[in-house]
Amino acid sequence: MRMLDLILKKRSALELDPGELEFIAAGAAAGGIPDYQLSAWLMAVFFNGLSKRETADFTRAMAMSGKKLDLKSLKGGRVDKHSTGGVGDGVSLALAPVAAAAGVIVPMMSGRGLGHTGGTLDKLEAVKGFKVRLTPAQVYKQLKATGLCMFGQTAELAPSDKKLYALRDASCTVESLPLIVASILSKKYAEDINGLVMDVKYGSGAFLKDFKKSRELAVALIDTAKLLGIRCVAVLTAMEEPLGLAVGNGIEMEQSIRILQGGKGPADFVEILEVLSGWMIYLGSKARTPQEGVEKAKAAIRNGSALEKLRLMVRWQGGDPRVADDPGKFLPRAGMTAEVKASGAGYISKMDARAVGQASVILGAGRARAEDPVDFGAGLTLCKKVGDKVSPGDVIAGLYASDAAKLGVGKKMFASALETGSRPPKKSPLIREIISDQ
Amino acid sequence: MRMLDLILKKRSALELDPGELEFIAAGAAAGGIPDYQLSAWLMAVFFNGLSKRETADFTRAMAMSGKKLDLKSLKGGRVDKHSTGGVGDGVSLALAPVAAAAGVIVPMMSGRGLGHTGGTLDKLEAVKGFKVRLTPAQVYKQLKATGLCMFGQTAELAPSDKKLYALRDASCTVESLPLIVASILSKKYAEDINGLVMDVKYGSGAFLKDFKKSRELAVALIDTAKLLGIRCVAVLTAMEEPLGLAVGNGIEMEQSIRILQGGKGPADFVEILEVLSGWMIYLGSKARTPQEGVEKAKAAIRNGSALEKLRLMVRWQGGDPRVADDPGKFLPRAGMTAEVKASGAGYISKMDARAVGQASVILGAGRARAEDPVDFGAGLTLCKKVGDKVSPGDVIAGLYASDAAKLGVGKKMFASALETGSRPPKKSPLIREIISDQ
Repeated sequence: MRMLDLILKKRSALELDPGELEFIAAGAAAGGIPDYQLSAWLMAVFFNGLSKRETADFTRAMAMSGKKLDLKSLKGGRVDKHSTGGVGDGVSLALAPVAAAAGVIVPMMSGRGLGHTGGTLDKLEAVKGFKVRLTPAQVYKQLKATGLCMFGQTAELAPSDKKLYALRDASCTVESLPLIVASILSKKYAEDINGLVMDVKYGSGAFLKDFKKSRELAVALIDTAKLLGIRCVAVLTAMEEPLGLAVGNGIEMEQSIRILQGGKGPADFVEILEVLSGWMIYLGSKARTPQEGVEKAKAAIRNGSALEKLRLMVRWQGGDPRVADDPGKFLPRAGMTAEVKASGAGYISKMDARAVGQASVILGAGRARAEDPVDFGAGLTLCKKVGDKVSPGDVIAGLYASDAAKLGVGKKMFASALETGSRPPKKSPLIREIISDQ
Repeated sequence: MRMLDLILKKRSALELDPGELEFIAAGAAAGGIPDYQLSAWLMAVFFNGLSKRETADFTRAMAMSGKKLDLKSLKGGRVDKHSTGGVGDGVSLALAPVAAAAGVIVPMMSGRGLGHTGGTLDKLEAVKGFKVRLTPAQVYKQLKATGLCMFGQTAELAPSDKKLYALRDASCTVESLPLIVASILSKKYAEDINGLVMDVKYGSGAFLKDFKKSRELAVALIDTAKLLGIRCVAVLTAMEEPLGLAVGNGIEMEQSIRILQGGKGPADFVEILEVLSGWMIYLGSKARTPQEGVEKAKAAIRNGSALEKLRLMVRWQGGDPRVADDPGKFLPRAGMTAEVKASGAGYISKMDARAVGQASVILGAGRARAEDPVDFGAGLTLCKKVGDKVSPGDVIAGLYASDAAKLGVGKKMFASALETGSRPPKKSPLIREIISDQ
C-alpha cells in the first residue's frame, strides 16, 4: 500500500476501505508516513470529508494504533463523559464520583486546558500529589478496586491521535467534522467503554460558537459511536456565560467538592450535573430511565457515597484524601485578590464566557500555549450571573492571582466581559436539546 | 506572517496577495516553512485554485526565490521553447539552432526524461562530453558569444520550483493547473526571456491525454505569461503515435542533426519544427509574421547556418563538434538489435505513443525513477507510421539495446503498441490549434 494512492483516492472523493484507514492510522503512530503526506491527506479530508463508515473505521484504526484497555472482565456498564469544553465547566469533577457511587464503572480520560477553556486534569492536579499520568495497568487495577479513575491520555492509548492532532493544528486542518469526531472517539474507544455521555457546548465560550454546527458535531459523534458499539447521548448546552460560580483549577475543584458534601451549588452547574449523571447511570445500566438515573445521582450525593468515591480516588491517585473534608484548607488559593463591582444599577445582560475564560488565563489559571505552567490557586469566583439585579458597588466577582500585574490586567479583561441593562435580559435555556440513539 | 494563516486563507478560497505568495515561495526555497505546511497549502490550492493574478504573482515569486538571468544587455529578442513532453519529441535539438541561426537569442532550459517521455538534456548528453550543468554566468557568456545555449535547471534558478515539484510529486498535488503553470513559467521567467513558444501535447503519449485539458493548460500558460510580460504562443499538437522516426537519446540526436544537414526528415517532425521555428523567429522579432519566420527557418537549414550554430554550441559545451558532420560515428548506438515485422497485410491503424515510450524505457533509453541512469545508445527507429500500408514481413521498427533480456521485453512492449486494420485509418491533424496572445 502506498500513501500516495490513498491521498489520490481521498482527493478524488472516493471511499477508503478499513485496511487503508488502518494503514494511515498505524503509519501516523509509528512514523512510517511522512508528515507532508499526512497533512496533504488531512487537507483532502477537509475538502472531501469521510463517510460515516469511514469515520467509524478510522476512529477504530486510531484506537488500535496503540494499546487498548480491556475492561470486559469488570462487572457493570463502563461509561465515560466528554465535554467539548467551556469556561467554569468542572462538572466532571463531581459527575464521575456520582456515577461511580451509583455503581457505574467510570474510566474517565480527560485533557488539559488550552486557550480560554479549562481542563479537568489541571483541576485534579490542584490537589497536591494527585497523579493523572497512569499506565493502562494502573487504570485497570484502580477501576477494578474502586470503579472510578480519572486520568490523562498516555502515549500508549491512541498514539495516532496525538500525532494527527498536532499535525492538524499545524496544517490548518482542525475544523473537519469527521476528524474531530475520530479524535474524540478514538480515545474513548481505546478505553473499552460501552456508554458515553457528551456535553456538546455552543456559544461564545465553546469550541463551536454556532448551535447548528454543534448539533452537527453531536449527530456525527452519535452516528460514529453507534457504529463502534458505544451507547451514546449528546446534551447540547449553552456556553454564553461561564457555568457555575467558579473559574480556575483549585476554585472549581472546591465548588465540586462542596456540592458532593451536600452543599446547594450553583443552579446551572447542578442542572447539568444531574442530567449528565442521570444519563451516565442509565447508560451504565444502573437505572431503567435517565430520570431514574437522576434520582440515583441525587441519592449518591445525599448519602455521602459520591464524596466517598472522590476521597477513594484521591487516595489511590496520590493526593491527600482530606481534601474531600476540608477543600478550603487542602486546595491552593492565590494570595492577591481584587473585586469587580457594579458601577451602576440594573441587570447583568451579558457576561461573555470567552472573555471570562481569557481573564482566568491572564490571572494564571490557564495556558496560552500547551507548554505553559498553570497557577492552581488562580482564577475567579462569581457572585452574580446574567439576569441578576445589581446596585452600584455590588460585588460581581472576586479575582485571585499571584501577581499584582496579572490581577490588574485580568480585572480589566473580566470587566470587558460584562454588559448591564435596565431590564432583566431574556435568558435562553441552558440545555437546548438532548440527542440519543437509545 | 504565519504560514498557518496563509493555509487558512487558501482553504477558505480567498486570494493571497503578492507578499504572501512571495513568503511561500521564498520559504519553500530556503526551507523556512515545514514540508507538512507546504503540502497542506498545495492541497488547498488543488481544491480552491489560484486566480490568474495569483498564478502570475506566485510564478514571479518562485522565479525570484533564486538567481535570475539578466539578458537585457543582449541584442535581440530572447525566446525559449517548452514542450509538455512526448515520445520521439526531439524537436528542440533542431529548433534551438535554427532559431539562433535566424538571429534569435535562445536560452533554452530543458529537463530530463522520466517515465515514458524523453528529455532534451539526456539527448544532448548522448554527445560525449556535452555539459548541461552550467552556471548563470556561463549561460550568459555563451549566449553573448553565440546566441544559443541549452542547459538544465540549476539549484540557483527558481529553487522553490525544485522543492515544490518534489513535494507535489510526493503529496499527490501535481495535477493542479495553476501549480503546473507556475512550475513551467517560473523557470522561464528566471531566464529573463521575452518570448516563449509552447508545444502543448495531448493524446496517449502526452502528460495530459485529453485535448480539452491540454487546451485549458495552454490558455492558462498564455494568460500567465502575458501578465509576466512574456510574448507567448501555444501550439496544440497530437501525441497519439511517436513523433518522427526516432525514439531514444543518441537516435533522436542523430535524426535532428541529419535534418540540419539538409536531410528530408520525417514529415510530422519537420511540420512541427517549421511551425515552432517560425513562431520563435517571429516572437524574437526576426520576422514580421510567423509565416515569414518559417521561410527564414528553412533558409537557415538550407544554408547550413543552423548546423553551424549546433556545432558551435557543442564545442562551447564540451562535446566533440564533429558530431555535426558525422552523427553516425560520434553518437552511440547500442550493440544488440532486433526488428519488429508486420505479421499480416493491411494498414497500421495504431502505434500507441505511451507504449512505444515504455518500450524505449525498457530498452534502456529512459528512466523509471529520477535517479536511474540511461543508455544513450538504446532506443528504436521506425520504418512505418500510422496509416502506412504493410505486407507480412515488412520491418516496422528496429530496436537497440545493450542487453538481450531488455531487447526481448522491449520488443514485446513495442508489439503491444501496434494495431493493424484492413483500411487506411482516419488521421486527425497533427497541429490542432494555435493559440497566441499576439
